[in-house]
Amino acid sequence: MKIALIQQEYYGTKEETIKVTVSKIQEASKNGTQLVILQELHQTHYFCQNENVDVFDLANSWEDDIQFWGNIASQNSVVLVTSLFEKRAAGLYHNTAVVFEKDGTVAGKYRKMHIPDDPGFYEKFYFTPGDLGFEPIQTSVGKLGVLVCWDQWYPEAARLMALKGADMLIYPTAIGWFEADEEDEKQRQLNAWIAVQRGHSVANGIPVATVNRVGFEADDSGVLAGTQFWGNSFVFGPQGEYLAHANHQNEEIIYCEVDLQRSENVRRWWPFLRDRRIENYSDLTKRYID
Amino acid sequence: MKIALIQQEYYGTKEETIKVTVSKIQEASKNGTQLVILQELHQTHYFCQNENVDVFDLANSWEDDIQFWGNIASQNSVVLVTSLFEKRAAGLYHNTAVVFEKDGTVAGKYRKMHIPDDPGFYEKFYFTPGDLGFEPIQTSVGKLGVLVCWDQWYPEAARLMALKGADMLIYPTAIGWFEADEEDEKQRQLNAWIAVQRGHSVANGIPVATVNRVGFEADDSGVLAGTQFWGNSFVFGPQGEYLAHANHQNEEIIYCEVDLQRSENVRRWWPFLRDRRIENYSDLTKRYID
Repeated sequence: MKIALIQQEYYGTKEETIKVTVSKIQEASKNGTQLVILQELHQTHYFCQNENVDVFDLANSWEDDIQFWGNIASQNSVVLVTSLFEKRAAGLYHNTAVVFEKDGTVAGKYRKMHIPDDPGFYEKFYFTPGDLGFEPIQTSVGKLGVLVCWDQWYPEAARLMALKGADMLIYPTAIGWFEADEEDEKQRQLNAWIAVQRGHSVANGIPVATVNRVGFEADDSGVLAGTQFWGNSFVFGPQGEYLAHANHQNEEIIYCEVDLQRSENVRRWWPFLRDRRIENYSDLTKRYID
Repeated sequence: MKIALIQQEYYGTKEETIKVTVSKIQEASKNGTQLVILQELHQTHYFCQNENVDVFDLANSWEDDIQFWGNIASQNSVVLVTSLFEKRAAGLYHNTAVVFEKDGTVAGKYRKMHIPDDPGFYEKFYFTPGDLGFEPIQTSVGKLGVLVCWDQWYPEAARLMALKGADMLIYPTAIGWFEADEEDEKQRQLNAWIAVQRGHSVANGIPVATVNRVGFEADDSGVLAGTQFWGNSFVFGPQGEYLAHANHQNEEIIYCEVDLQRSENVRRWWPFLRDRRIENYSDLTKRYID
């Protein structure tokens, strides 16, 4: 299966940004891609750098957005993983990945379950934690374990997707550096982000594909110094082997051949699922064991 | 805190092997080490390359072994993590890590919970799966989340130790290559083994120290071609940063300064424990969700 990850910048407006995204989807489709994955909240800037009630207006187009991306999937005949700002009701919003079939129908939705909140990433203000659970989405190219960004730090989320038969894990992401951090701290952050997700591929014996945005985005409230999104989109195979890896500063379409049969082989060699001590795992549902 | 990992070969007999181990503990102690970690089943060869009932005789010394290593801990005034073959009753054996306090008393025991079984690693024949659960062991140098080898592939084990307050994770290990495997397959295996444990340090915000044996050991049944234990003992910090890393072919004492205060800082920056969706994790206690 040929997949494409579109690592992209924000072009100042939703319209300009979408125009570029669509042209890249067309290019990927022409190159024989069956599955295209977009980054987190790819239609707009990463608006969680500050808390502003007016920003919820961006979610007013939620229904239209679904229509739009369904059409793009169908025009290009690709399974398409999008990341949208969902308006569910007044005062009730989600960070939602919508997956489209090649014919443009909605294959499934995933509402981001783990919501971060730290300076410059004020997501708890914008997004109600997901209530659809960890459910892989069945598509014509496989059962996709779609999770979003902060979910990537949680082995529980990856494991639950694997236990429900996900053929691969997919993480649309928006993560970056603050300029004020030292260079070695920046590298530690980047390496930690790669390491934890590489760990998911190994522990579960399935590929992991992560798409991150790239480029600098100012904090439009003027309070923070802005975020340099670090790109580095990647694909790991089921043994944690690098299959593809993007750069940290430029837009890029990352193409990758993913052989889902290989997961079967890897899991025969390393049958981790066989030996889980499930009778001793019940405390995983506790906040802390004290 | 200064720790030492003793990555070692097998010297043909238990007596010769222990002699070397003890001299290295003495050296580590003289160099100011407070915590010494030994590899899995460090007293003997890795005897699970075949299934042989006579091998259970190796566990007859279990009580004496505890006495012996307690004396070594006390003589060198170090907290000592050992990995022994426990005879609990006739026909009931465990792969057990025993942790000694500086004064030689037993601080705690951990019976290996996840037991592998694949060609050359026939551990299900020898070791009854542990029944002490995932309990960190309190010592004068911190609360040690001691796990053993195959446990290292399980994010659940690492998480449970972290949720019970482990200050660091420790894995005595015996893992290696078969000569018949291609070089790139060998590298994938080694990298996967490092990656999954590095992931545990990131996901839990605590250091991970793993000690593996080194050197070639034949299968004394003559059936298999033997195992080249790949060394590569390592320590990662709480952000998944490399603190120390041994070579793949020689004995080595790996010294490392571990700053447990850093875990507090890392967890403030990345408060993963805060956002776990525990109400959605109950299916982790299922074998598979079908």
